[in-house]
Amino acid sequence: MANVYSVTKIVGTSETSIEKAIETAIETASKTLKNLDWFEVVETRGFIKGGKVAYYQVSLEIGFRYEKA
Amino acid sequence: MANVYSVTKIVGTSETSIEKAIETAIETASKTLKNLDWFEVVETRGFIKGGKVAYYQVSLEIGFRYEKA
Amino acid sequence: MANVYSVTKIVGTSETSIEKAIETAIETASKTLKNLDWFEVVETRGFIKGGKVAYYQVSLEIGFRYEKA
Amino acid sequence: MANVYSVTKIVGTSETSIEKAIETAIETASKTLKNLDWFEVVETRGFIKGGKVAYYQVSLEIGFRYEKA
Amino acid sequence: MANVYSVTKIVGTSETSIEKAIETAIETASKTLKNLDWFEVVETRGFIKGGKVAYYQVSLEIGFRYEKA
Amino acid sequence: MANVYSVTKIVGTSETSIEKAIETAIETASKTLKNLDWFEVVETRGFIKGGKVAYYQVSLEIGFRYEKA
Amino acid sequence: MANVYSVTKIVGTSETSIEKAIETAIETASKTLKNLDWFEVVETRGFIKGGKVAYYQVSLEIGFRYEKA
Amino acid sequence: MANVYSVTKIVGTSETSIEKAIETAIETASKTLKNLDWFEVVETRGFIKGGKVAYYQVSLEIGFRYEKA
Amino acid sequence: MANVYSVTKIVGTSETSIEKAIETAIETASKTLKNLDWFEVVETRGFIKGGKVAYYQVSLEIGFRYEKA
Amino acid sequence: MANVYSVTKIVGTSETSIEKAIETAIETASKTLKNLDWFEVVETRGFIKGGKVAYYQVSLEIGFRYEKA
Amino acid sequence: MANVYSVTKIVGTSETSIEKAIETAIETASKTLKNLDWFEVVETRGFIKGGKVAYYQVSLEIGFRYEKA
Amino acid sequence: MANVYSVTKIVGTSETSIEKAIETAIETASKTLKNLDWFEVVETRGFIKGGKVAYYQVSLEIGFRYEKA
Repeated sequence: MANVYSVTKIVGTSETSIEKAIETAIETASKTLKNLDWFEVVETRGFIKGGKVAYYQVSLEIGFRYEKA
Repeated sequence: MANVYSVTKIVGTSETSIEKAIETAIETASKTLKNLDWFEVVETRGFIKGGKVAYYQVSLEIGFRYEKA
Repeated sequence: MANVYSVTKIVGTSETSIEKAIETAIETASKTLKNLDWFEVVETRGFIKGGKVAYYQVSLEIGFRYEKA
Repeated sequence: MANVYSVTKIVGTSETSIEKAIETAIETASKTLKNLDWFEVVETRGFIKGGKVAYYQVSLEIGFRYEKA
Repeated sequence: MANVYSVTKIVGTSETSIEKAIETAIETASKTLKNLDWFEVVETRGFIKGGKVAYYQVSLEIGFRYEKA
Repeated sequence: MANVYSVTKIVGTSETSIEKAIETAIETASKTLKNLDWFEVVETRGFIKGGKVAYYQVSLEIGFRYEKA
Repeated sequence: MANVYSVTKIVGTSETSIEKAIETAIETASKTLKNLDWFEVVETRGFIKGGKVAYYQVSLEIGFRYEKA
Repeated sequence: MANVYSVTKIVGTSETSIEKAIETAIETASKTLKNLDWFEVVETRGFIKGGKVAYYQVSLEIGFRYEKA
Repeated sequence: MANVYSVTKIVGTSETSIEKAIETAIETASKTLKNLDWFEVVETRGFIKGGKVAYYQVSLEIGFRYEKA
Repeated sequence: MANVYSVTKIVGTSETSIEKAIETAIETASKTLKNLDWFEVVETRGFIKGGKVAYYQVSLEIGFRYEKA
Repeated sequence: MANVYSVTKIVGTSETSIEKAIETAIETASKTLKNLDWFEVVETRGFIKGGKVAYYQVSLEIGFRYEKA
Repeated sequence: MANVYSVTKIVGTSETSIEKAIETAIETASKTLKNLDWFEVVETRGFIKGGKVAYYQVSLEIGFRYEKA
């Protein structure tokens, strides 16, 4: 009866903000995984072009609930 | 004469952004603590509903100055 | 022929957002360093005034490519 | 309307088990704090007497919800 | 001929003990993954209700051997 | 009967030494908290003025025993 | 349009060198995963027999690009 | 007159519980070392057989007092 | 108008104390860098000769303000 | 008279080995910095192409002695 | 009946490679310790002379089985 | 011909200063171990009595050279 969760690591990118990169990661994960429950930001990086942020690159651990059979 | 600070840990939440979650934490803390001085983000997490971010949950350490008696 | 990168640590500040603080750091660094390539956020802090965020202070490691002579 | 949590650090002890030390910490905290919500084990130590465990000493971070006024 | 292992992260829960939460995670993982070999506890958390532990929540990294084709 | 401890984080400052900053933190904490038992240094920082140390700033975790009612 | 990456953790082994263990892990992963992009070494261990290294065991996080549908 | 302690790292195993693995480590250490004083858990791992925990493997740092000559 | 800081890593040494090693590092840095603002101790090591401390070796991260052009 | 060292962070790359990447970083650094003294590996990463290691990318902290004027 | 292991920390050096430094550490340890079982690399450093690696210096934790009496 | 070092962990105490606690640890270690070479501070703690520091307790890793037979 006890809940069990699996945790997967996903990296989202965005040209505009950290939140947008997080949302991109979660929306992509939700296409193949069900019952997404929580996330934790584990790394915030980015790439630079011409002295400006080209895009943010945010690594998340995403937890999702195992379905009970 | 030397300053002494106390550090407390607060978790703020927001449906829209990391900054909003930080501000919510600080505004709540400022209702009961005086002389808030600095903060440090120690964890950025969040919850997911329907494949989207339900809310951000940001943990801060907040430093405040001891009042001199 | 192999690429070599140098990594420098810069702290940007902004009154409005974490992303703005990151961009300020990168734009300042790009005035004196060429070939900026990537960054990693290593610390997110800030200062508080009157129970509100006075400014965000974000520490970055910024990587840049050594020029080939 | 957003929830805000405070996090406090408590160390519980027990002569018999890690779980008992956790429960002792939480029960003691619940006498003075309301709305305890979650905990995280941050350190598991103990003392030794006569070549045996004298008692376990477990440090927890305990999160509790700020009451809405 | 060399062995290769994959590592997955699973969170088990239990109302009674840390060991029970670990076992629940491993038994659930063993339903879909073969050749489970080792685990490492990476986080021990829990939830609180009425001033008592409601359930333990233990995160494991679980290693399993790639089958040789 | 089991002992329970609470842990608080305090930052002391001193113009002369790290030990002085630690003692300032502990003496200030002892004015409002009873049964102080141990400390751990978690960060040693400082500020600079005119190419010299202006003051040391040492963060401590301080453990104190809950009184038995 | 933004890229999203998934990160998986793999452990490779080799009797001869750390690089060989890394390559074994990557070649095995590439049989079932497409678009492998980068890796990071997260742990270097090994086993000993008769006072000599029996084999190296290197844990990698491997990032791979989600295919755009 | 000041006390000095030495710290040694020991790994205990048990088929039944984390506490049993800790006690096994301490009892074995106490056969060759005198004046054992405290321990800290630094890693909790285990091995799996047939989809169940085969045994727990808990790494401790154990402190013991140098005898005064 | 926003302040930007650069962070450099310096190791000072002293035969007599940790504070002296910190001061040596800062005084040397101040000869070539302007606007030194803060430091953080990141490592405290030393060398031993004849069973005594030969010298302390303290690593600092030192922050200094970018001059506004 | 006390020695002071500066620490810089450099990333070397190599298609063949970790040691080669380290040597490339050090040889490049030695073209512009004098009195290089020690290094520490702080990150070992790499890029993958066609299911094989394209190149290793090793981050070093390199310490060098300040010249006495 | 349960196995107990002891863990010791050894630093090996080599002028040619990281693997050679590891092997030197293990072979030296095996002269005085029996039943060496596993190792983990905890630090990879080195010294530089004339703009080249003088030698690698690799720190290992080495686990060995307590003999059953 | 290559040097090999062993690393041991010692905790020194002192009523007066951190440096004194370090020296006490090293002097005690030098009575039973030869060729002590370097140390690294890994933890600085202490005990409190009557609102004042009772004694400092500093944990060191101490490296010493294996004698060549």
